[in-house]
Amino acid sequence: MGENKDINNSFLETVKFDETGLVPVIVQDHETGKVLMMAWMNRESLQMTLKNKRACYWSRSRKKLWLKGESSGNMQVVHDILIDCDGDTLLLKVSQTGGACHAGYHSCFYRKATDDLTMDICDTLMFNPDEVYGKKS
Amino acid sequence: MGENKDINNSFLETVKFDETGLVPVIVQDHETGKVLMMAWMNRESLQMTLKNKRACYWSRSRKKLWLKGESSGNMQVVHDILIDCDGDTLLLKVSQTGGACHAGYHSCFYRKATDDLTMDICDTLMFNPDEVYGKKS
Repeated sequence: MGENKDINNSFLETVKFDETGLVPVIVQDHETGKVLMMAWMNRESLQMTLKNKRACYWSRSRKKLWLKGESSGNMQVVHDILIDCDGDTLLLKVSQTGGACHAGYHSCFYRKATDDLTMDICDTLMFNPDEVYGKKS
Repeated sequence: MGENKDINNSFLETVKFDETGLVPVIVQDHETGKVLMMAWMNRESLQMTLKNKRACYWSRSRKKLWLKGESSGNMQVVHDILIDCDGDTLLLKVSQTGGACHAGYHSCFYRKATDDLTMDICDTLMFNPDEVYGKKS
């Protein structure tokens, strides 16, 4: 099983960042297994996450480091970081304060496809985003 | 809560494919919550998955539709498809036959970062990839 040879390698050197310097990160509740969100990291945000055990991402829209919870208070304490076979996707197991989603839900995956190909809400609203982020005009 | 307005919209029209026509798909065991893999879909593979309830992806390396399990027999029966707040990531809840990973593990996320930043194996080997895919020279 050739795949076992690399477990003594450096974790950081095993991560394959894409051509824009980013790697997708799946974020999962470490106790329930619920998938909370997907985000992106560059090398700096991954190093900050490893050092501080608090999730830090790269915001593709704002083009800057994004310490999860810096606006909302809904931070993520990191318990484990896993890497996939190809080294190009990470899985974070976290304790999520409040809701992970900017829309106020516990998970960003709060909509489910129905048999008639519309959508149902399938998650719990945790906070009012207007109150947390300020009301948009 | 503006986010609730769109639940009567078409699921397919809510999916935002990236500039290469793909959307990332997180794949999770529908009973245990274990994250098995991440893959990519284009519109055609998503439509096939919705129609047949069997996971079909777009292989970025082989540049063709990839009916999961077509080589290994390790197919995925799809129970639910969720979509995130931004519409740019999908979450499939599946029943996985055998292992999801081409390296023979149940999950592609079979390596975990250790405190000294090397890696530990943290998953179960389900099959010998040399036997399933043919031995590489």
